[in-house]
Amino acid sequence: MPALASGAEHQDPSIPVVAALAVMLLFAKLGGDLAVRVGQPPVLGELLVGVLLGNLTLLGFDALAGLRTDVFVDMFARVGVIILLFEVGLESTVAQMLKVGVTALLVACVGVVTPMALGYLVTRWLVPDASPWVALFVGATLTATSVGITARVLKDLEKSQTGEARVILGAAVIDDVLGLVILAVVTGLIAAADQGTHLAASAVALILVKAVGFLVGALVLGVWLSPRLFTLASRLRVRTVLLSVGLAFCFGLSWLAGVIGLAPIVGAFAAGLILEDVHYRDLRDREKHTLEELVQPISSFLVPIFFVLMGTRTDLTAFAAPGVLGFAAVLLVVAIAGKLVAGLGAVGKKLDTWAIGVGMVPRGEVGLIFAGIGHELTVQGERVVNDRLFSALVLMVIVTTMVTPPFLKLALARGAKPA
Amino acid sequence: MPALASGAEHQDPSIPVVAALAVMLLFAKLGGDLAVRVGQPPVLGELLVGVLLGNLTLLGFDALAGLRTDVFVDMFARVGVIILLFEVGLESTVAQMLKVGVTALLVACVGVVTPMALGYLVTRWLVPDASPWVALFVGATLTATSVGITARVLKDLEKSQTGEARVILGAAVIDDVLGLVILAVVTGLIAAADQGTHLAASAVALILVKAVGFLVGALVLGVWLSPRLFTLASRLRVRTVLLSVGLAFCFGLSWLAGVIGLAPIVGAFAAGLILEDVHYRDLRDREKHTLEELVQPISSFLVPIFFVLMGTRTDLTAFAAPGVLGFAAVLLVVAIAGKLVAGLGAVGKKLDTWAIGVGMVPRGEVGLIFAGIGHELTVQGERVVNDRLFSALVLMVIVTTMVTPPFLKLALARGAKPA
Repeated sequence: MPALASGAEHQDPSIPVVAALAVMLLFAKLGGDLAVRVGQPPVLGELLVGVLLGNLTLLGFDALAGLRTDVFVDMFARVGVIILLFEVGLESTVAQMLKVGVTALLVACVGVVTPMALGYLVTRWLVPDASPWVALFVGATLTATSVGITARVLKDLEKSQTGEARVILGAAVIDDVLGLVILAVVTGLIAAADQGTHLAASAVALILVKAVGFLVGALVLGVWLSPRLFTLASRLRVRTVLLSVGLAFCFGLSWLAGVIGLAPIVGAFAAGLILEDVHYRDLRDREKHTLEELVQPISSFLVPIFFVLMGTRTDLTAFAAPGVLGFAAVLLVVAIAGKLVAGLGAVGKKLDTWAIGVGMVPRGEVGLIFAGIGHELTVQGERVVNDRLFSALVLMVIVTTMVTPPFLKLALARGAKPA
Repeated sequence: MPALASGAEHQDPSIPVVAALAVMLLFAKLGGDLAVRVGQPPVLGELLVGVLLGNLTLLGFDALAGLRTDVFVDMFARVGVIILLFEVGLESTVAQMLKVGVTALLVACVGVVTPMALGYLVTRWLVPDASPWVALFVGATLTATSVGITARVLKDLEKSQTGEARVILGAAVIDDVLGLVILAVVTGLIAAADQGTHLAASAVALILVKAVGFLVGALVLGVWLSPRLFTLASRLRVRTVLLSVGLAFCFGLSWLAGVIGLAPIVGAFAAGLILEDVHYRDLRDREKHTLEELVQPISSFLVPIFFVLMGTRTDLTAFAAPGVLGFAAVLLVVAIAGKLVAGLGAVGKKLDTWAIGVGMVPRGEVGLIFAGIGHELTVQGERVVNDRLFSALVLMVIVTTMVTPPFLKLALARGAKPA
């Protein structure tokens, strides 16, 4: 009865999606368990289990080949990382973040300038026949910190509320803004070069104004709006108002950040910073839970989906292309060194500069996005980031992501010892 | 800088989705509040708010026009209704369901045969020039109960664990199986008629065997497997194992149901029935929460998305087509009467037959799916369900869905009075 069969498939696209979610949730826990048994944070296990699931095709097992590219799983993962940053934001307040603001700004700036300069130099040195634009773009790819991994490791180790964690998270948010500006400028410069024209300084200024405007605006307006929003919400005579309004606030700011051109996770983090217990005391008393407690199960559901999916996207065959491993190794050294140096931005603040530097290392999805854009850009008919360069950048992103959990754990454990 | 703009849009498809989620969550709570203020269950408010959001285009406001058809919002809604049925299933056990099994089977059969026969007759009577196949298909569309609405109303009123609730939910699951078989048979008959051939009885038998096999197999195997699965899971040294494994079990059975050709929600409900506190006592003690408590915030997040989305799909302009309202009114009477009669299947069991009948009334998404398939089927070049018939069926589905919450509340309140 093909009519029914096709009808049945047509009528419920959720069937393959729930299968994927079930497999990812189970394997996430298995991977997490193995990681914990060898003394690593669970997130490393989730990433590695993802690598395994994503590369089973190499062993001839194709049933999970679609996982990597499924748009619905991707969307659950995206909402998952938004929830994660919201959750991490909830653990801090705006006041606490402002206290580390200058330090975070310093760390972010050093952590953007150093890897960008180093990336430019090594590309000029190792790929001498490539145009300066290519080197510039590779440098830009090395700038933005992916806060997802670090946020998760800090949560796994229950260190989200330390001074180091606040500097890292604040710097990562500033990084994201700086990265955006750099990406916009470099992309604009390359597009102009491709057409033989120049980039208007006003366009660069506009991006900067929008980005800074969002952060300042969101924080100032949010702090004013949030208690009022929850006072209104507490008049609603339905259950689970706190969670719904909290999530709506998080999603609303994520959307706003996205519309401005920032990563939605920046908005989610800002939303978490803004919301404080005192804003919703009535609702908390009525519903017997804090927002953190209510968000936690949603996070347990969706966050591992993000990390397993990131793992599946690691194409192990990319390692095999000639020259990729060598250039990737150099990029990796530069990428790591550039961010470790960033920790020096916190010198003299009684903070562990080493832990801060390590926390800034992962490039994760932001790096992948940069590499992807470079792969689509052309100058005089040639890709700015060609296939081999792309593989090397992906490899760099993967390794910075993979090495961060164990090293960050080590760095924080060292710092925790009685000095 | 169009390169960045397009890059930014390209890189994050979550931006419009989080906006939709934020709007839907906020309006769901507002609608729920208004419903509660006039003494109705919150779900009615969520549906009506959805109708409002989905029809704002009529007032010239187009910003939310995409909500109705967004595939990602649709997927969140689908997972939402799966979570809802899982949650409802968790509140009962297999043993409790078996106790009402015979009654539920009786209720389901009466509730399938009566509306089907009545639907056939009124279509033959009111649309005399239509072929008998059309009448048969309209009859089939009236059979399947949509358990989502009823499950939600029962939860809102904290009545999920009454005998009536179990009969309704059990009957709705059996209904779904019967509806599937009928849909398969009718579709097969029509396809055969279109080609001038006959339908093989073996094909019908196969569908029946698969459906019954799934239910019996899932329950028997699940009851055996579940404690063993959780004993294994309790050895994992990571946090939130209970929720992850529970969700994986729910999604796994939903997938299995879908693969067999049943609605995934049938699998989710079965998963909920199977899982019992005693199966995961170790994990519950370690994680300090029951599975119900952990699933609840996920349900608060995703379930309102489902009901608001169902509301947005109500196209108010469909009411305007000539003849639609009249035929829809007759179908509605038949649809409601046919299911109220089903309550008589529980006569002599000390159960409230009126409440059971009302609980079976909503057709919801299952009815819409049937109507949609009929809209795509043709016999001798003509649609089995033409545009006007389709609008009438959609209207019937909407109204049965809308009237159930208030009437079910009334019926249950009446039954709760000291007799």
